[in-house]
Formats: sequence, C-alpha cells, structure tokens
Amino acid sequence: MFEFTLTARNGHARAGVFTTPHGDLLTPVFAPVGTQATVKTLTPEQLKDINATLVLSNTYHLYLRPGDELVRNMGGLHKFMQWPRPILTDSGGFQVFSLSDSRTVDDEGVTFKSHIDGSTHRFTPEKSIAIQEHLGADIIMAFDECSDPNDHAYTELAMERTHRWAERSLRAQTRSDQALFGIVQGGVSPDLREESAKFISSLNTPGIAIGGLSVGETKQEMHTMLDVMASHLPESRPRYLMGVGTPEDLINGVARGIDMFDCVLPTRLARHHSAFAPEGRLNLMNASFTRDQSPIDDGCDCYTCRTFTRAYLRHLIVAKELLAGTLISIHNLRALIRLMEQIRYLIENGTFEAQIPELLVLWSNNAKRINHEG
Amino acid sequence: MFEFTLTARNGHARAGVFTTPHGDLLTPVFAPVGTQATVKTLTPEQLKDINATLVLSNTYHLYLRPGDELVRNMGGLHKFMQWPRPILTDSGGFQVFSLSDSRTVDDEGVTFKSHIDGSTHRFTPEKSIAIQEHLGADIIMAFDECSDPNDHAYTELAMERTHRWAERSLRAQTRSDQALFGIVQGGVSPDLREESAKFISSLNTPGIAIGGLSVGETKQEMHTMLDVMASHLPESRPRYLMGVGTPEDLINGVARGIDMFDCVLPTRLARHHSAFAPEGRLNLMNASFTRDQSPIDDGCDCYTCRTFTRAYLRHLIVAKELLAGTLISIHNLRALIRLMEQIRYLIENGTFEAQIPELLVLWSNNAKRINHEG
Repeated sequence: MFEFTLTARNGHARAGVFTTPHGDLLTPVFAPVGTQATVKTLTPEQLKDINATLVLSNTYHLYLRPGDELVRNMGGLHKFMQWPRPILTDSGGFQVFSLSDSRTVDDEGVTFKSHIDGSTHRFTPEKSIAIQEHLGADIIMAFDECSDPNDHAYTELAMERTHRWAERSLRAQTRSDQALFGIVQGGVSPDLREESAKFISSLNTPGIAIGGLSVGETKQEMHTMLDVMASHLPESRPRYLMGVGTPEDLINGVARGIDMFDCVLPTRLARHHSAFAPEGRLNLMNASFTRDQSPIDDGCDCYTCRTFTRAYLRHLIVAKELLAGTLISIHNLRALIRLMEQIRYLIENGTFEAQIPELLVLWSNNAKRINHEG
Repeated sequence: MFEFTLTARNGHARAGVFTTPHGDLLTPVFAPVGTQATVKTLTPEQLKDINATLVLSNTYHLYLRPGDELVRNMGGLHKFMQWPRPILTDSGGFQVFSLSDSRTVDDEGVTFKSHIDGSTHRFTPEKSIAIQEHLGADIIMAFDECSDPNDHAYTELAMERTHRWAERSLRAQTRSDQALFGIVQGGVSPDLREESAKFISSLNTPGIAIGGLSVGETKQEMHTMLDVMASHLPESRPRYLMGVGTPEDLINGVARGIDMFDCVLPTRLARHHSAFAPEGRLNLMNASFTRDQSPIDDGCDCYTCRTFTRAYLRHLIVAKELLAGTLISIHNLRALIRLMEQIRYLIENGTFEAQIPELLVLWSNNAKRINHEG
C-alpha cells in the first residue's frame, strides 16, 4: 500500500512519489501544520488552492480535544476536518515533553498533565498508536522521547528508550492502511545518531522520521547530524525531518536527502504579520507599507499576491482585522510549497545541486527581519 | 446611470433592478457589512461564492483608518478591498452619534473625538460627501443626524437639520457616478416621518434611505413608521432601510415596500458562535452538538453546510480556532442572502404576500436562542 518510488536524484537530493490511501505525495514535500484539525484560519478549499498535499495534525492536541474516540466516531480525521488528501499525525511525544504542565517518564510511558485543564493523562507506545489508529491518518509515528540535546548521557538513555518504544509501537499497530514511521533520535551526538539510524532502519518501517532536531542546536550541528544519518538510512524509504523549518532548512535538508518536512513557521509568522518576500521577511504592520501598491511578492501565484496590495494588508493589520492572518497564511504557505515544487523540478532536471548556493542567497534574507522603517 | 426598474409587485412588495457602475443590483437585496473595508474574516472570493452583490462599508471607520485620501490614492474602495461588485457607504453620521467618545452638534456639523485615539475631528455634510467621493462607492448617503426616538422635540429639530444637511450634501456632490441617497428621519412620530418622507422625496435623489429605525423602538413602531412612509415615497426609486436586520425584519420590511437592507447581525452572531438554523438560532458551542454529524442546515447550499458537521464547528469553537467564525459567517450571510433570493422569486411569482405568515413562522425561531442543553 505504501510504495516509495524515487524518480530522480541529484547529489544526495531525491525526488519521489509516496503512495498513500489518500493519494500520491510528490516528494520533497512541505506539510502545513493543522494542530487542532485545522490549519489555522484556512479552509480546506484555500489549502487545495495553494496545492497543499500533506497536512500534519497533532495527536496530543486531538487526544485532549475533541478526543480521538470522537474523531473516530465522526468517521476519522479526513472526514472530520474535510481534508481529502494525505494526513500525517505525530506520536504526541514531542508535545508531552514541550507543552504539558508536568510529566514523569518511565520505561513504560509518560504521565503528564494537560496544558488545558491540568487533568492527568498517560501515554505509552501502545496508547499513542491506539489514538493514531482512531484518528486514521495515512502516516503515523512511533512514540518517542525527545531529550535535551546538550545532555549526552540522558540523550543516550532517551534514544534507547525510543528504540524500545519503536518496537512496541510496531507490535501495537493493528491497521494496515497507515504507514507507521520509526523515529531516529540521538541529539547532536554523531555516534548516537549513527546507532539510532541503524537501529530504526533495521525495523523496516515504510518511512523513517528524524526527531530531536531544530530544538536549539546550531545549523551546523543539524547539518552534521543529517550527513551522519544519511549514509545509514535506506535509500528506498522516505525520510521525514520533523518540525523543520525555515526556507533555508528546507533547501539544506533536501540537499542532505530529506523528503518530507512540516513546520508551524509560515502560519505562525502570518499571525504576527510577517511575510516571506523577495527582499526578505516583511513585517507588514510597518508604516513603510502604508501606500505600497505592490503585492507581497509579485512573482507569487497565490490568491493573496494575485489580489491584494501590501497597503491593504497593512490596513487590515492596523485595524486588527482577522482577514490579515488568513491572507498572509495563504501566501507564506504557498511560498514554501512553491519552493518545494521548484526544488523538485530542479532535482528532476539534475540542476538542483548546482543551484543550491543561489537558492540559499535568494532565501537568506528571509532568515532575519529586514528593517523597513521610514 | 442609476436606473431603477421595477420588474414585479406583490402587495406592497417590489422586485426590481438597480443599475450601478459596478453592475446590476437585483432587489430586494441584503448587504453584508464590511465596516473597515472587509467583511470580517471573509475573502472577496468567499463573498462571491455566497452570491453577495452589495457590500456596505463605513465612512466613519475608513475616514479614521486608513483614511479616505489613502483609499482614493490606492484607486478607490473597490480596488483597495478588491470587491468588484457594488459598494454602499453610509454618511458617517450614525457612527459619530453612536461610537465616538464625545460629540457636539451644531447646525454646521458635528465635532467628535475618535474612539480609536481620542483625536478631535469634524464632520459636516460637505466633509461627509468629500470623504465618500474619495472612497468612491456606487451608492452614498447624505449626512444626517440620528436622534433618540423617545425625545420628540429633539427628534423634530434633528429631522429639520437632517433636511438642511441633505440639501447641502446634494450641493456638495461633484461626482456623477455615485448615487447619493437622501435619508428620511423622524423617529417614531408618524407626523414627522410623513413630513420627512415628503421632504426627502422632493429632493429627487436616485434612491431614498430610511434612518433612525432599529435603534430601540418596538417592532410595531417600526412597522407603523414603514407604513406611514410608504405612501409618501416615490414608487420609482429604491428604498433602503438602514441597519436592519433580523430575518423577520427583512420579511416585514419587504412586505412594506423596502428594497435594500444591511446589518452586522449575521457576522456578529457568527463571531459569537450563533448560527441561523431551521430549528432556530443555534449556539454551536453547546455540548449537545459534540457528536452532531449534520450540517448547520441541510437545506443550505453554502460551503460550510455542504462541507462541515456541527460537531466539527463545535470543536473549532471549543478549541478557539478562528476558522469557526469564518465558516459560521459564510453560513449566516448566505442564509439571509438566500432568504432575499427566495423572497424575490416569490414576488416575481406573485405569491410572496400569501406566504408571509409561513415565512415568518419559519424564521420566528431565529429571533430567540433555543436551549439545546443535554
């Protein structure tokens, strides 16, 4: 059911097709994040318009609200949120470690308190898989522990626990229509990353996720870890770099053999009035845009750029109109999805690797906020 | 440029076509309110999808933010907000009297303080028309004074001032591509309403607005005023009942010869999770909708009803997701626009008057909130 076909390679970069019950994913792919069964402020129609294919949703959030059994009773996540294309759910592990009010980890699982109402809950690998089977995404994740990468000793323990939990997750799986990915951990330690990549690869899951990056390490550390893992991961299966990232991270990740990405960045930036633009990331509330009749990016094909001026977007922001967040989200997501479409095209033409420096320069301005005062 | 053609009558109800520079308006028509150059949370695409034709925008708000000269420099309101169909602006009078921090009225105009920053401004009939000419709507309003309907003596003074201001508004007009409507005032006094209807009619404006209703008077008082005015207003020009209303108000208004309406009700209700439904106005946050797999109204053709369950909408509300407001706004606006389309059809078939009692029963449940506990 879950075939991954590589259609082109260029250096370490790959273009492929991953088949799922809800359609083919062309890789490399960037997945918008729909934390609570909605990509914030956007309708599924608007997501289709920007050619989104894969959408990520969060197991931790949906378990707490509205509850995974409710979603199952409503016909599963695709039907509930009316997204007919592929969906990926994470394992809940990352949110338990980053969002919950308190938590205690043991070999069996994690007990934590809800960030919503303080109620006590427990996740185990078996529970995480059961929840994800209720939700019914096409791609699901093994339960893992994400640790502080600066604590090498604990990172090793957490990695070993993640490996045992991956085996338990696989044993717990009862549905054959969901691709369960194992997750490589190991912090910023090359030896742990190598060990984890080998172990997770040995499980023969239909895809492999890479966790524990983009959590505070340097870009150089992230790149080193990606390089270390690349040689130990099977070529024949898709590689998913979780929670990443910025436009530069996407370019650098694809260059190191990554096929799938997700990140809240484009929608979170949008809600803070920040837009990806050719001259760099723009804060559209800035007074310099008061009379700016150009779109955010006149090379962009999204509804927002085809329709509205920066002056109008700034007016909406200043007037506290929610439509601003919707329109900028459409653009920011389309910008990253278009970047991935462009990269895929370059890989298929064999010119991606040669153009990496140019792409990085083109997008480097979007790493920092440009000051548009005056 | 502004022809009004009556295509059918049924009792006092009328169906017609009002030609404007941005297309024909089929009347009776309900106009969504786009206070700050946006119908809250909706894109123009979504407004077109629900067959909105006329959109109202507020002179007071746009004058303060982003400023009418900016809108003019951006090519006018149609281009700025990208609404290609007809737009109507009010005169700013009502907001000055209801929203501004303080105000002093004299025969020349009104001095008021901005509700945004407390800055002092002055509107006169000439200023209101100049602002509305900068904004560039198809239909604009004479500057008027809306008074407390319970103060008969002051209401008479305010009406007389409104008449003088209507004459000054007409003299101030320089653009021929905007239909300037005079506004009838007179509170809840039959004699003042008759006098005002006669006076405003004598000005031969291409349409006539009715102000000062739906401001606290009883439904019976509103109906009496509409009946009094009807016989003194020219048949040949469209009649616009400002700021009205509820579904029942629309039915009762059309039955008394009204052709145009606007109201914030559908979008305001939506932001408070309240939806027009066959069984009455629903508070979709209610726990009874937790597992409700039906749409808001399975007879409705809007995107929301074609796509989403009440259970999903409730989840979005409970999870504080802004998409809830967007989706319910789409439905509530479509419900009133569809009601007007239905009424127009019935007028053209000569069956509206006979069906008024049935329509009122059908919509009566939406006047009150139905308790869906349990």
